[in-house]
Amino acid sequence: MEPYVEWLRARQSEFLTEYQELLSIPSVSTLPEHKADVARTADWLVARLKKLGMTRAEAVPTCGHPIVLAECLNAPGKPTVLVYGHYDVQPADPLDEWKSAPFVPEVRGDYMFARGASDMKGQLMCALKAVEALSAQGPFPVNLKFLLEGEEEIGSPSLPDFVEAHKADLACDVVLNCDGGIYAPDQPSIVYALRGLAYFEIEVRTAKSDLHSGLFGGGILNPIHVLSEVIAGLHDADGRVLVPGFYERVRPLDEAERACLRQVPHDDNEFLQLAGASVLHGETGYSTVERLGARPCLDVNGIWGGFTGEGAKTVLPARACAKMSMRLVPDQRPDEAEAQLRAYLEKRMPEGVSWTLHCHSWGPGAVMERSSDYMVAAAKALEQVFGRAPFFERHGGSVPVVGLLQQRLGVDSIMLGFALPGDGIHGPNERQYLPNLYKGMETYARFLCGL
Amino acid sequence: MEPYVEWLRARQSEFLTEYQELLSIPSVSTLPEHKADVARTADWLVARLKKLGMTRAEAVPTCGHPIVLAECLNAPGKPTVLVYGHYDVQPADPLDEWKSAPFVPEVRGDYMFARGASDMKGQLMCALKAVEALSAQGPFPVNLKFLLEGEEEIGSPSLPDFVEAHKADLACDVVLNCDGGIYAPDQPSIVYALRGLAYFEIEVRTAKSDLHSGLFGGGILNPIHVLSEVIAGLHDADGRVLVPGFYERVRPLDEAERACLRQVPHDDNEFLQLAGASVLHGETGYSTVERLGARPCLDVNGIWGGFTGEGAKTVLPARACAKMSMRLVPDQRPDEAEAQLRAYLEKRMPEGVSWTLHCHSWGPGAVMERSSDYMVAAAKALEQVFGRAPFFERHGGSVPVVGLLQQRLGVDSIMLGFALPGDGIHGPNERQYLPNLYKGMETYARFLCGL
Repeated sequence: MEPYVEWLRARQSEFLTEYQELLSIPSVSTLPEHKADVARTADWLVARLKKLGMTRAEAVPTCGHPIVLAECLNAPGKPTVLVYGHYDVQPADPLDEWKSAPFVPEVRGDYMFARGASDMKGQLMCALKAVEALSAQGPFPVNLKFLLEGEEEIGSPSLPDFVEAHKADLACDVVLNCDGGIYAPDQPSIVYALRGLAYFEIEVRTAKSDLHSGLFGGGILNPIHVLSEVIAGLHDADGRVLVPGFYERVRPLDEAERACLRQVPHDDNEFLQLAGASVLHGETGYSTVERLGARPCLDVNGIWGGFTGEGAKTVLPARACAKMSMRLVPDQRPDEAEAQLRAYLEKRMPEGVSWTLHCHSWGPGAVMERSSDYMVAAAKALEQVFGRAPFFERHGGSVPVVGLLQQRLGVDSIMLGFALPGDGIHGPNERQYLPNLYKGMETYARFLCGL
Repeated sequence: MEPYVEWLRARQSEFLTEYQELLSIPSVSTLPEHKADVARTADWLVARLKKLGMTRAEAVPTCGHPIVLAECLNAPGKPTVLVYGHYDVQPADPLDEWKSAPFVPEVRGDYMFARGASDMKGQLMCALKAVEALSAQGPFPVNLKFLLEGEEEIGSPSLPDFVEAHKADLACDVVLNCDGGIYAPDQPSIVYALRGLAYFEIEVRTAKSDLHSGLFGGGILNPIHVLSEVIAGLHDADGRVLVPGFYERVRPLDEAERACLRQVPHDDNEFLQLAGASVLHGETGYSTVERLGARPCLDVNGIWGGFTGEGAKTVLPARACAKMSMRLVPDQRPDEAEAQLRAYLEKRMPEGVSWTLHCHSWGPGAVMERSSDYMVAAAKALEQVFGRAPFFERHGGSVPVVGLLQQRLGVDSIMLGFALPGDGIHGPNERQYLPNLYKGMETYARFLCGL
């Protein structure tokens, strides 16, 4: 047994303590009241990185939350690996659906329950522990850099400028992106493509202020009706998005890739059970795997307007709002998608409505080369630890940093994380399967040693 | 000048003080945290009624908020008038749109600003002051009873049973319903018909809990999409409600009544300005006056689902909800309307959706005889005080108690109140035009003396 594996296996409870410490800090990047918590998390990481042997580690301020940079370049002739991660988390609402408090991490059975347990403080701690294990054995087998941001969950607004301004600091041969998962505990997988994201907010206003629904109802436009019609018009009966031009740049799936995706051991019944849903739904003519990974989609993420409290209020609201996001596939351009949505709204909004469309954030999708040395090394490490070769899949989620680093630094990312599809990330009772993390540490260490 | 008029004119500032005292109590019936305030308001009224000469006055407990009953039956041979009012108010949200605090009544110019100023603590105080003026002159000219409820704004859930159980206490010749208004300060009007109301809440659920929109988006039903489609399907392009059967019992407007309604000095531009809207909207083929008073309508009063906080959260929500109300015209039956809506939803909801429809409250509409002695006396009192004969109109709002008392006690209600269409009731910055209240007191006193 490799000495670092032995080292890691002996330190699982130490790891758990550190992991819980990190999970206890509510680093919710989107809520202003947690700004100090986010900064505290960055400082925690800097201290940690220094302790495990980085020659440089700092929390660099940005217009938003700090970005943690670190490096140790003592492996001449060896590749430089940039470890990417994020230390911010999603808000924890709806709070009343959590079984234990989201920021009081609790181990129940083989799982750690907490906001961020899986997305992605678990993966982050796993990578840090792997590096610590290597540092305990002597000099690192590769040159290491860290890029850990605190704004991933709000669309990484500071990252593009930061990367542009720190190209030399970030220069590397490959990115090890820890923000990901595998298919199942007994079936490792590697994501080679990601969907992009464009996130919008729409406000529809038909009156100056809320009105009495008896005195005005039936004589004035209702903004909830207008917004509902706009949303209802976004899809046809076949689940296709009706925003004109939306599919223009979508690369059709060729038979070779459809065959590759058929290898994904996906089970629609398990998928439904995971979702707690009873029917599949989506674009006609595509399998669920294709719908989620290789086809774009559009979802309303939130809607509100009028009276939403307990009981009844007979109000004709003045405005209604929605949050809406598109998952884009490579070749679709987020800026074009925004323009297409705006043109759709211009056409659909009736006279007498004032409306706004605001883009919160966007990032392109990405596809990586499946046969590179790095991809092969990652596959090998997974096979060694999990005892089974990984399959390759496209991922429905968005990791915009992958496209960003591909464009700005010219490097591919190896998506290597140990979350599971059932972890409930972004929802209540987020959890992380702990045996996966223990194997994850070994996988990271093996991957770095294998380059 | 009648002595009671002189009495009233000398006591306007005393009236203002009492009016502000009543407005300061936040008797919001729909919010549990204001339960004690609602009870306090009832007690305040009982004390007041005793002071102005009622031989019996009490706050009768119900399952919800108390109902205030009072009487003074010392005018043998004269008619018995039951004064109806409500002392509860709507919630004050959105709070940030109020210029002065909703429960810190403020006089600005000729207006009193406060939640309830117009709907209907102003009208209530006005009637109480008129009765006080009469009591100062000697025995009352009629037998008086009071029925003041604290649940009007939540649909009067306790009232039907209460009326049934107190038929003898409430027996009367006519109801003086003070919960109303006139068309303009220089143009009195009398409402002879009211729309009914049926208020619903719908919940649509497609998954067990909120999901990540990247991992599930495009593969699972989105409840906001489903709800939006359901709402969008409620109206056709001509503004007609598409719930099957909805218009079945609606009495077509005959030419005589259309001619009567054309006398209403309504101005569409003023109506739009009042609403703060830029276009009219409603059922094709009807004027605004007809749309609001003589045609039924359906409005979504509130909608919510998914993430509604600041910023962006990439969530595929598990559920979406809406509050929805119908304004019904006489002959439409609220229970039938509910069944029709349920049938519509059953037909429209796609497979895999679990949904509920809950009816918060309902009440039928009402039409009153325009040529009764009481209606004539009311018209005469208005003409004497305002110097101009009132016109007769149908009202778009709902005062379910009118239909209830018509059915249970067999008496018509005279709708006599002094609110104005621009008072902003149920919205922010609700106000009452004070000169109207001063004239209102005289009108009430004249009406009671004229029977």
